[in-house]
Order: sequence, then structure tokens, then C-alpha cells
Amino acid sequence: MNAVLLIQCPDRSGLVAEVTRFLHERGGNIIRLDEHVDQAIDRFFMRVEWQLDNFEIESKEKIKQIFQERIGHKYDMQYEVHFTDYVPRMAVFATKASHCLYEIIYRTQSKSENWNVEIPLVISNRDSLRDNVEPFGIPYHFIPVEKGKKEEAEKKQLELLKEHNIDFIVFARYMQIITDDFIAKFPNKIINIHHSFLPAFIGPKPYHSAYERGVKIIGATGHYVTNELDAGPIIVQNIQHISHKDSVKDLIRKGRQVEKIVISEAIRLHLERKIIVSGNKTIIFD
Amino acid sequence: MNAVLLIQCPDRSGLVAEVTRFLHERGGNIIRLDEHVDQAIDRFFMRVEWQLDNFEIESKEKIKQIFQERIGHKYDMQYEVHFTDYVPRMAVFATKASHCLYEIIYRTQSKSENWNVEIPLVISNRDSLRDNVEPFGIPYHFIPVEKGKKEEAEKKQLELLKEHNIDFIVFARYMQIITDDFIAKFPNKIINIHHSFLPAFIGPKPYHSAYERGVKIIGATGHYVTNELDAGPIIVQNIQHISHKDSVKDLIRKGRQVEKIVISEAIRLHLERKIIVSGNKTIIFD
Amino acid sequence: MNAVLLIQCPDRSGLVAEVTRFLHERGGNIIRLDEHVDQAIDRFFMRVEWQLDNFEIESKEKIKQIFQERIGHKYDMQYEVHFTDYVPRMAVFATKASHCLYEIIYRTQSKSENWNVEIPLVISNRDSLRDNVEPFGIPYHFIPVEKGKKEEAEKKQLELLKEHNIDFIVFARYMQIITDDFIAKFPNKIINIHHSFLPAFIGPKPYHSAYERGVKIIGATGHYVTNELDAGPIIVQNIQHISHKDSVKDLIRKGRQVEKIVISEAIRLHLERKIIVSGNKTIIFD
Amino acid sequence: MNAVLLIQCPDRSGLVAEVTRFLHERGGNIIRLDEHVDQAIDRFFMRVEWQLDNFEIESKEKIKQIFQERIGHKYDMQYEVHFTDYVPRMAVFATKASHCLYEIIYRTQSKSENWNVEIPLVISNRDSLRDNVEPFGIPYHFIPVEKGKKEEAEKKQLELLKEHNIDFIVFARYMQIITDDFIAKFPNKIINIHHSFLPAFIGPKPYHSAYERGVKIIGATGHYVTNELDAGPIIVQNIQHISHKDSVKDLIRKGRQVEKIVISEAIRLHLERKIIVSGNKTIIFD
Repeated sequence: MNAVLLIQCPDRSGLVAEVTRFLHERGGNIIRLDEHVDQAIDRFFMRVEWQLDNFEIESKEKIKQIFQERIGHKYDMQYEVHFTDYVPRMAVFATKASHCLYEIIYRTQSKSENWNVEIPLVISNRDSLRDNVEPFGIPYHFIPVEKGKKEEAEKKQLELLKEHNIDFIVFARYMQIITDDFIAKFPNKIINIHHSFLPAFIGPKPYHSAYERGVKIIGATGHYVTNELDAGPIIVQNIQHISHKDSVKDLIRKGRQVEKIVISEAIRLHLERKIIVSGNKTIIFD
Repeated sequence: MNAVLLIQCPDRSGLVAEVTRFLHERGGNIIRLDEHVDQAIDRFFMRVEWQLDNFEIESKEKIKQIFQERIGHKYDMQYEVHFTDYVPRMAVFATKASHCLYEIIYRTQSKSENWNVEIPLVISNRDSLRDNVEPFGIPYHFIPVEKGKKEEAEKKQLELLKEHNIDFIVFARYMQIITDDFIAKFPNKIINIHHSFLPAFIGPKPYHSAYERGVKIIGATGHYVTNELDAGPIIVQNIQHISHKDSVKDLIRKGRQVEKIVISEAIRLHLERKIIVSGNKTIIFD
Repeated sequence: MNAVLLIQCPDRSGLVAEVTRFLHERGGNIIRLDEHVDQAIDRFFMRVEWQLDNFEIESKEKIKQIFQERIGHKYDMQYEVHFTDYVPRMAVFATKASHCLYEIIYRTQSKSENWNVEIPLVISNRDSLRDNVEPFGIPYHFIPVEKGKKEEAEKKQLELLKEHNIDFIVFARYMQIITDDFIAKFPNKIINIHHSFLPAFIGPKPYHSAYERGVKIIGATGHYVTNELDAGPIIVQNIQHISHKDSVKDLIRKGRQVEKIVISEAIRLHLERKIIVSGNKTIIFD
Repeated sequence: MNAVLLIQCPDRSGLVAEVTRFLHERGGNIIRLDEHVDQAIDRFFMRVEWQLDNFEIESKEKIKQIFQERIGHKYDMQYEVHFTDYVPRMAVFATKASHCLYEIIYRTQSKSENWNVEIPLVISNRDSLRDNVEPFGIPYHFIPVEKGKKEEAEKKQLELLKEHNIDFIVFARYMQIITDDFIAKFPNKIINIHHSFLPAFIGPKPYHSAYERGVKIIGATGHYVTNELDAGPIIVQNIQHISHKDSVKDLIRKGRQVEKIVISEAIRLHLERKIIVSGNKTIIFD
């Protein structure tokens, strides 16, 4: 079993030395260390993963407490500690399109992908994807979102998420705008796939807009959801070359391929604790 | 010597048959033929290149005239005929950055690039690139663009362009907005490189905006200049992956590489007569 | 309903004119036309797709017969005629890895992919993928290939293929070398995915070899199977950047993503009749 | 002024802690730190860059000596220390093709590229590139390599390299195979660009081989030169999609674009001290 520490704090000299000494002196064998200084804002970021086998602090709570006493509070650090024996619980939201949902379920169940995650439930505002989900033994919850009754629907969703101890949410082409209240409950814990190369073509129907504009490349963006539509911290982007031969339908088809890879990458990075959010940006230690 | 015919007209059955028969019956050996139907607007596009060696119509003017009589007027065609023995005359406009200018001069002079083009002059609103241009035997014209005196400067530019029989213009990172009058004199004959993946980050300082937004990919766009800023028909786009490690300076450095490739590609396509403009889009027969 | 004509023959003047006139005079509305001349071997290639709605030759057999009489025999053409109302029957062979198999089944069943194909059966030399196939209503045939008894196994396979009127075969990471006799029965009708960027790393364990060599890019190749191992005509290739951080296991994981896209592209091109094989190369009219 | 330390040694616990403490205790402010453990061979790699402004060890020689005494010898480390105030001296070798040479000279002279390097001389086995070099104020040495007299030529080359205190060499499409003796004098200090995606198409004429094989992607590889032809540690690779439309000439043209980017990247990484060679592989801390 390993522990992963994600740190950010004002930059100053000696931070790496202090953290690595803290771990080494307690018998923690560092597996991997990454650090970054954002010189524009003078801020330090670090990810360190170490083996817990011979680590002298045995309880998880104690690790956090002692780290806070010895180092955390001294440098005004924001940090998280994760443990690889915990299996995160991911809720997937979808609407009509099945390709991202399918890819996510496949990767979750495929041993060779090695995703450390469970999907306790899929939530959809339509009933039509049920047959894509239930055969895999995953409960499917149909929660319609009627006009003017969004909050009612969200209340039901939140109850389910709580009941199933959900850690984070993936919007696998979930075509509803959610309320700020909902987002506030999962800060940097909702991953969305937007089917354009943000910030181009914010909002619905990006492939139609791309077609209208006559671009030669389309893209997809995996990002955390914030209050501003399609403006949250970007995790992954990728693209696909297109040509005048491609109709809107072709763009949608070619885009699907990029979307499902991008969302899978974003989920993998989240699961492997390789993302630190800084303001509206991400540091990706991959 | 070859001729290239670029056609667009309302779609109807038999167009390829009629054009190819016209050429074949007159001894024209087709080297390459491309066609495209834009089904959204029911419009037909075609590029055909044929050898003139045994073509029975000898004069260039006659080719246009007879094609118009037999086919062009019948189908309401817009078309151009180009001949490969003509060497197009390209004016390059630049400001401060040298990388695109340099690449263009290099490719123009390199035999192996096989660009069929001449650069009779470079025009700049600064004097600082003179030493990058004159050693190659290309005249460098420094025409300052003072505030409120843009039209005066453009008048001088247009005189030079006329005097040198310029066919088309390349803005190799020319950092001035030009007037609609100027553009009207070179419709779809001004190629600009914009240093972002349009339509994201229109206007100046796109790399700064990209940095602020925290994107994971930057790009460059080669397009024809129209009255609306950075909104003309896109010819070529390409991208470069970036990461949180990249400062604005790094984006600018990495972007240069993409920019000079993209503008070179756009110029090559223009020179090889492989572009048809349809509304605000391009058909690229590469 | 459309027809697609795929032609190759020695190059000469007037071929496009003659074929398009043949179709036009009989009321065939051309939807799309592509042609290519390989000047190194003086050979002409053409793909033309036209609507059969008002085409005056009604029977499929007659189309072939009349085309042969009027044009085909005159120019020593090799050609195929396909009709879009026929649904090709594809057999998928697999061994242990499920990702390509899964992707293929998903795309076949997803309406939005618009694949014109049926999968009457999956054949495997292992029994372990049964649960990935049968839930989709596709019969799964476990045919073990024992040492020294390959021909016995192939006999069973061929019987099944015949019984189900299979048109073409996809090796979705099928880890057996097949006999020349088998290949001879499906010339340019077996699509294989090789998990390297051919011709680098021919044979088994290409990711291990790539790791050993320390390459910075891995790839996948979709190709038709010929008698020489991994040396058949290449249809599609794509790549993925890697780094020193990637273990063999990471290469395998990253490679899967490329493999499933590449094999899907190869199948799509085959289904849309966009491939002509010329010697050991392909002409792709996409 | 900064110092860069590149370390490799058998892996063991506490290495990062010890090195960072060493620097921190002496007032060294770490700018950037990267580490990697190759678990297949249990080997540790690290790059650390720190500011020398307040570093208490003032002389460069002392830094090396004290680091060796306190840390280096204890862990059986191989390491290099570089200082950013030193300007490395690069010799460029070329033959006929000018594109890589040109790109390298441009980047060296362009302030915005920020390459910390000088080119004291260009050596060629032909006289034809002289006019591409001398206008930039760089001496051009024409040293013909006659059949059977390679060692004589290399003797002259080595004298020039010594006389100009050359640190490393770039083969910018230098089309000669050099002797093992020559290579032994510049271990991991000769960067070559090979115009294929190695290990595919080793040796001369890779574009011809790529054309023959009918690949759909071509590439270029920047690597250090070792005794085995085109088999040294790979630094950078990149690719370009091609199609059946591309003749050998087109491949050569498209390849040039990739080659010059790849070689520039390899040089930049070498200059920024971001490469550690491990066996026949590279660790790239970019």
C-alpha cells in the first residue's frame, strides 16, 4: 500500500528537502516525486508517493496529524493525503450518448486498465441507456429533469450520491446544466467532457458551430465543473483533424473517438491522484 | 506546362462527365481530378489539372473563352484557370517577429521545396527586420504606420504592390489591422497566420490568453483575411501540446514552430491552386 | 441505394471522362468521385459512388455485365462493384485481449457509428472471452489450436465461415499465425491489427521490443493479411507519444487505445469500400 | 547563474532527501527538481537545478569536490554538474541538405529561442553549403571524405574540433558513417538526425524504403551516435501522416519539416541539460 501527498503552498527554499526528510526519517520509501513552481504566482506544488510498508506512522489519521504539526502549518500548506488501498466511488451521469459511458464502464471492469475505482450507480435524465448499464451489474437511476423542477431532481440525485458514499462524479455527456449549489457540494470533484476544444465553442452544439466556422481541427476537453459554464480547470485536451469532406454528422462521429479518450484520461489522472488544482488551472503530474 | 481549373457551381448531375469530356476531346491529359459536393448547400466543387502539351486550344485566353461558352455559362459556374508556367508574385508583410518571414524566404529559395513563387518585396511597419531580408536579395520597404495615419501608409503599400504586380500577400505576423478598402483589393488573396487555434483567442496576445485559461494545447491558424478580424476562411490549422510547466514565454516559443509550419502549408496550398473558397470556408484539394 | 465502383487499370487519357459519361448517360447521379494515378507504375485508380434511383440498368448483374462490355474489357480494368443495400458479414477472431473485440462490437451495434455490417460469429482459440460476446447476442465459437494441429482447427474455422457466408475477417488481436491456404481463401479480406508501427517490431511482443529499444513513440498498424508475417498492405497507422516513465505495462495500456482506434478505422474504410489494393500498398479514398 | 546536477545511481531510499538537504543547507534555492526510478533495473535518476546566488560554496570545482565527498561516493553515483553561465560550443556537420543546418543557425541566432550555444564552425564533406553558412559569420570548413581516406579526413576534423574547444557535435544530415574512434572521443556528445521513425528503415534512403513499404506515417529520430548504425539512445521522435498521393519526393519534402523540428528539439534538450543516458535509452526531464 502506498500513500500520495498532494501539496501546494507559497514557494520558499527547502520545501522538497523538508518533506522528503520527513518521509525518509520515518522509513517511507519514496516511489515517485514531482514538483513544480509556478513562478508567475510564486507558488509551490508537489506530489510525492511513498510505500507505507515500513513507515513508522501506522494509522492514516496520524499521518495527516503529524504531517500537519511538523510541516503543514509551518508553510501554510494546502494538502491532501490519499491511500492506494481505498477504492474511490464514482457516479456516472449520462443523457443520450452512450460512447463515453460505455468506455468508462469497459475500463472500470477491464483488469488490464488497472483503474482503482468502483461505479456504484449511473444516473440519467433519460431512461434510454438502461440496457447499456444494467447488464454490467451497475444500478441505473432514471431521474427526469423537468423544466423548472431542476432542484427537485438534484435533490434526488444528491440523496443517491450520499447514500452510496460517492467520492466524485463524471458527466459522460450529461446534457444538463447543474446548479451552483450542487457544484458547491463537489468542488473539483465533477469531471465533465466538453465536445470542443475549449475555449472555442462553449455551450451546446459545438460540432455544429465548428462546422459553421469551417475549422480544420475539432477537439474535446476534460475539465472540472465550476459555476461558470465550460470554464472550469482543464485536465486534458485532444484533437482530431477534419476536412471539408466532413459533414456535421462526421464531426460528431470523429469527435466521439476523441471524447471517450479524453474523458478516460481525465478519470485516470483523477484516480491516480495526479491532479492539483491551482486557481482555474491544473497541475498534472503524469 | 499544365493548366488548373477550379470550379464551383450549383450541383447537378453530369458535371464531372461534361468537364472531363471537354478536356479529353481536346487532347488534354488529366493529371489529377478532385471533386466535392457540399450537400448542406447543394454546391459542386472541382479541381482538375491537365497537361497542355497536346491540348488543341493553344492560347490561354482562348481556353477560358471556349470553356465559358461551352460549359461555364450553362451551369452558372464560378471558376478560375491557372497555368503552371506563370510564377505568382507574393508580397510578404511583417512587423517584429522573424520566424515566419525567415521560413518563407527559406522555402522560396530552396529548390527542393519546389515553391513556384517570387518575392518581389517585403513590407514592414518597422525597420528592424531589414537584415533578415536584404541579404537574400529581396527589397525591404519600411513603411511606418502612425496612429491615425493608417490610410496614408496603406496608400504607399498599395502603390508598391501595384508597381510590383503583386498577386497575393502574406501577413507573416504583421501586427496591424488593415482597412476594408485594402482587403477589398485582394479578396481571398491575403493569407494571415493567427497565433491561436481559431476561433479561440481572437485578437492580440493569444498566447497570454491561452496561458490565463490554462489550456493544454495551443495552435495556429492560416486563413484568408476578410473584413471581420480573424474570422476569414480557414486554410490550415495545427496544434502543439503544452503543460503546466510552460510559461507564456514557452508558449510563444512552442507556438512559433507551429506558426511557421502552418503558414508555409497555407502558402503551398495557395501556390498549388488547391484551395477553393466557399462562403467563409475552404475546400482544400490536397 | 448507391453503387460503388472500384477500378484499377493501366493509365491512359480519357478514363474519367469515359466512366463518368457511362454513368451519366444512364441516369446515374454521381455522389462522389475520387481518382489517383500512381505515376511510378503508370497505373490508374478510381472510386465512384452513384445513386441507383433513376439508373436505367436495374439489375446488379446487368450493371457488371454492361460495364464490362462497354468499358472494363477495353482498358484491361480490374474492378469491383458494391451495392450499399448489401450488409457485409464480418467474422471476428480474438484470443485473450478484449479491447479491440469490445470496440468492434460496440461500433457495430451503435446506430450513430453507422457501420453497415453484421457479426454472425466470433471465433477464438480460447474460451475466456465468451462473456464479452454472448451478452450482445453474438455466437461465440471456441476452437482451440493445438500444437501441430493447426490445420484441423482451420478446417473447423473455414466450415463455420462458409456456413455463415462470411465476407471478410477481422483479427482483433488474434494471436495465431494462420496458414497460406487459409489466407488464399480470403485475399485482401482479412484485416489484422498489429500492435506496432510497422515495419518496426514485426512479430510477437512488439511493446517489449519498443521498450527495449527506448523509442519515444509507439504505434499500431491495421493491414490486410498476406503470406508474409506482418508485411501485408497497410490500411491505417497511428501513434502515441511515450516517455521514459512508461514501463512495458504502460506501453501495453497506451497501445490498446491506439489499437482499437486503428482497427476501427480500417474496418470502417473496408466497409465503406474506400480501399483499393495495389501490389503491397493501399489506395485509401477517404 | 544556476547549476544543474544530473545524477544516476543504484536506487535506494532517501536519495532525494539527502541531495536536497545538501543543497538547502548550503543556501541553494532549488528552481526545479525531477526524479525517476527505472524499476526494471532498480536505478535512480535525478536532475536538480538551483540558484548559485547565495550558495555558500563559491567555486565550481569545490561544488563538485564537496558533493563527491559528502554524497557522490557514498551512493556510487555517476553525475555531472553544469553551470548556466557557460556557453557550450557546438560544431555542425552537414553534407548536401540545407534545411536542418539552416534551422539550427536560425535558432542559434534568434534571441527569442534563447539557445545557450555558440557555433564556432560548420564542417562539410561538400563545398556547396558555404553560402548558407558564411553570411551568418560562421566559418565553413570543407573537408572532403575520399574513399578509403576517411581516417585522414577525420584527423582534420578532430584537429578543428580540438582547436575550437568543441563540446558537442550535431550531424545535420551529415551523410557519412564515422569511425568508432571518432565516436569514442565524443561519447553521447554527437546528436544525429535520422530521417525515419527508428528502428524502422535504418540506413540510407529511408524515404524510399517507406514509400516501397506503403506506410501511412513517416517520422524522424534525433539520437546520440554510438558504434552501431542508427541504434544509439533516442532523444526525440516525431511523425507526419502521409497518403497514397505522396511520391518519394513528397515524403522527402514532408519529412524535412519533421526532421528540422526533431533535431532542434534534441539540441534544445541537450543544451538545457535535460537528458540522462542510461544504457541505450534516454531519460528526458523536460
